Formats: sequence, C-alpha cells, structure tokens
Amino acid sequence: MALIRSVFQEELDGVSQSLVDLSKMVSDSINKATHALIDAELKTAEEVISADEKIDTFQHELDARIIDIIARQQPVASDLRALVTALRMSADLERMGDLSHHIAKVTRLRHPEPALPSELRDLVHHMGTVAENISRKIAVVIETRDTEMALQVEKDDDEMDKLHRQLIGSITNGAWTHGVESAIDITLLGRYYERYADHAVSVSRRVYYLVTGKFAS
Amino acid sequence: MALIRSVFQEELDGVSQSLVDLSKMVSDSINKATHALIDAELKTAEEVISADEKIDTFQHELDARIIDIIARQQPVASDLRALVTALRMSADLERMGDLSHHIAKVTRLRHPEPALPSELRDLVHHMGTVAENISRKIAVVIETRDTEMALQVEKDDDEMDKLHRQLIGSITNGAWTHGVESAIDITLLGRYYERYADHAVSVSRRVYYLVTGKFAS
Repeated sequence: MALIRSVFQEELDGVSQSLVDLSKMVSDSINKATHALIDAELKTAEEVISADEKIDTFQHELDARIIDIIARQQPVASDLRALVTALRMSADLERMGDLSHHIAKVTRLRHPEPALPSELRDLVHHMGTVAENISRKIAVVIETRDTEMALQVEKDDDEMDKLHRQLIGSITNGAWTHGVESAIDITLLGRYYERYADHAVSVSRRVYYLVTGKFAS
Repeated sequence: MALIRSVFQEELDGVSQSLVDLSKMVSDSINKATHALIDAELKTAEEVISADEKIDTFQHELDARIIDIIARQQPVASDLRALVTALRMSADLERMGDLSHHIAKVTRLRHPEPALPSELRDLVHHMGTVAENISRKIAVVIETRDTEMALQVEKDDDEMDKLHRQLIGSITNGAWTHGVESAIDITLLGRYYERYADHAVSVSRRVYYLVTGKFAS
C-alpha cells in the first residue's frame, strides 16, 4: 500500500512539474512575442508562432497523462480535485500560449512596418514585462504552493488592468494620428495582454483554492 | 451490477441534459445581447448581465456534480473521457455566456447612445444570428450526438469569420467617419462574436471526437 501510494505521489509530482514546465514555456513565449512586437522582428515572431505548436503538443500529452492517472489510480476526492484542477490549469496555460502566438501574428502581419507607433513602445513593453513576470510567478506558485505569491499575482493583474486602460486612453484622448487600422491593432494587442494576465490569475487562484479551500478574491 | 450501471447511465444522461440546458441558456443570452446592442436597449442589456451570474452558478454546480460522479463511480476509460470532456464543454459554454455579457456591457457603457453606427446594424445583427444558431445547433449536437450537424457547425463558423472580416473591413476601408472610440468598440464586439463561435466549434468538435474517435477538421 505504501508503495502504491508513493508511485501515485510521484505521478502527482510529475503533473505538477509539467505544469511548471508549461508555465516556463509560455513565459518565454510572451517574452519573445513582446520583443518581436517592440522591435518589429520577423524572425523572433516566427519563433513564437512555431513554439506554440510545441506548447499545444506538450499540453495534450500532459492532459492524456492526467486522465490516465485518474483512470488507473481512482483517486479519492481531494486528489481527484487536484487532478481536475491540473487539467484546468493546463487549459489556461495553453491559452496563454495562444495569446503570445496572436501577438506574434500581428507583428508578422505588419512586418516590415512596426505594429506599434513609437510612442507606445514603452507602455507595451511594460505590459509585456508584467505579463512575463506574472507567468514566472505562477510557475513558482504551482511549484511551491506559496499563497503569498498567489496574492501578489492579483496585484500584478491590477497593474496590467491599469496599463491596459492607459493604452486604450492613448488611442481615445483625441491626439491619435495613426489611423483606425493601427487603433484596431492596438485594441487587439491590449486585449491579448489583458487576457494573458487573466488566465495567469485563474491558475494562481486555482492553486490558492486547492491549498486553502478559500477563494483568493 | 445492472442496477449500478443503470444509475450511472442516468447520471451520465443527466450531465448531458445539463450541458443542453446550458447551451440553451447561452443561446438566449447571445440573442438578447444582440437585440440590446442593435436597439440600444439598456433593460435588455442589464438582463443579460444578471443572467450571466445564473449561468456561472449553473456551471459550477454541474462541474461539482461531474467530479462527484467520477469520484463515486470510478468510471472506465471511455466513460471517464466523456466526463472529462463534459467538464471542458461546460467551460466553453460558460465562456460563451461571458462573451454575451461583454457585449451587453458595451451596450450599457454607451447607453443612451447606440454602440453601433446605424450602417453596421444589419451586419452585426447577422453575426448575432449566426452566433445564436450555432449555439442552438450545439445543444442538438450534445443531445443527439449528430455528427452531420457537428460538421455544419464548422460551416457556420466559416460564415462568422467571413462576417467578422467584413466588419473589420468596414472600419478600415477608408470611409470610417465614427472616430477611434467607436472603432475600438466595434473591434472588441467583433472579437466577442468571433470567440463565441470559436467556443461553440470547440464544443461541437469535442462531441464529434467522442462519437467518432476522429477530429472534425
């Protein structure tokens, strides 16, 4: 019995490690997507686009593994909840990869022109940094189950919302001179960064709930 | 044994029925959200916003029920896959409710002004109709496991993508006279309808895969 439990525990740890790996993959992806966007770098954008396939494959394999563990181990309610939560976290992380991919596609679409007007580069760079930091933090939250850090993630998301409002404000303040096509690009890019942070918050809240049995917000 | 199997089968049917109910709730929601948007009707928009809470509660209860079934029945691999798929479908449907809610919030934000310029009302009404039809179809797909209808859903989504491109084209064709704020609203509204259809396709594909063991696209 002790042996079986220990194999199962190893499998649970393996799932947790894969979620950490996936968080790191999407963190690298948003980092590169932001750099490609800021510097109008086609090659980096292409790398993000092809890395997204690897993220998708990694997630599908992880999900298959989780379902297989549930089928073989027939876990008790609390372990089952942890495994179902892992499925939901992997879906959030996969979606974060998609959003990096969407950002890279805007860069590719507008190349060799930059998709961003030069006066918005600093602001979007800031959004990219917050997005990357928030996903680096959720890797730690998943690995260590640090509930303090899970609460920090909520604050980072508030920061993202503030930057997002600033971005939309920069289009609607009456001084916009870059036309409606660029306004559409910026609106969508802002939405992608905001959603990226939302999914990170979702992951963080799921861990918080698993550990404490309470909602983080 | 036959009795236990039959109770389990009833539980599976109950889950399926709840997914059908949830599809109908979100179909009603997108219908109302579209009418509120087209006619700048605040009261209807408010109804969509408060209905979204009911959708969320319904989904949480359904998910808890599914996890409880897995814990108690310890289903074999194929039944387990069906239950895990049900969790994913409920997440897609809940998100569709969120998107109706987002559309209603744009209507509320701009009220008493209409959020849509009059020349775009027909096009957006068309998008709303496609969105509603697609979610009515997935209710049937879930209930009957009709794979032909699941393939029709793919075509409806192509139609949505075409309408979405038309919508964006109407902003970028050089004749846009409604300013950037309105361009932002239209960009986000277009994105919400497009994502709504994407999630419906996702539900439909999950049923198709459960039934045939193959991918629909």
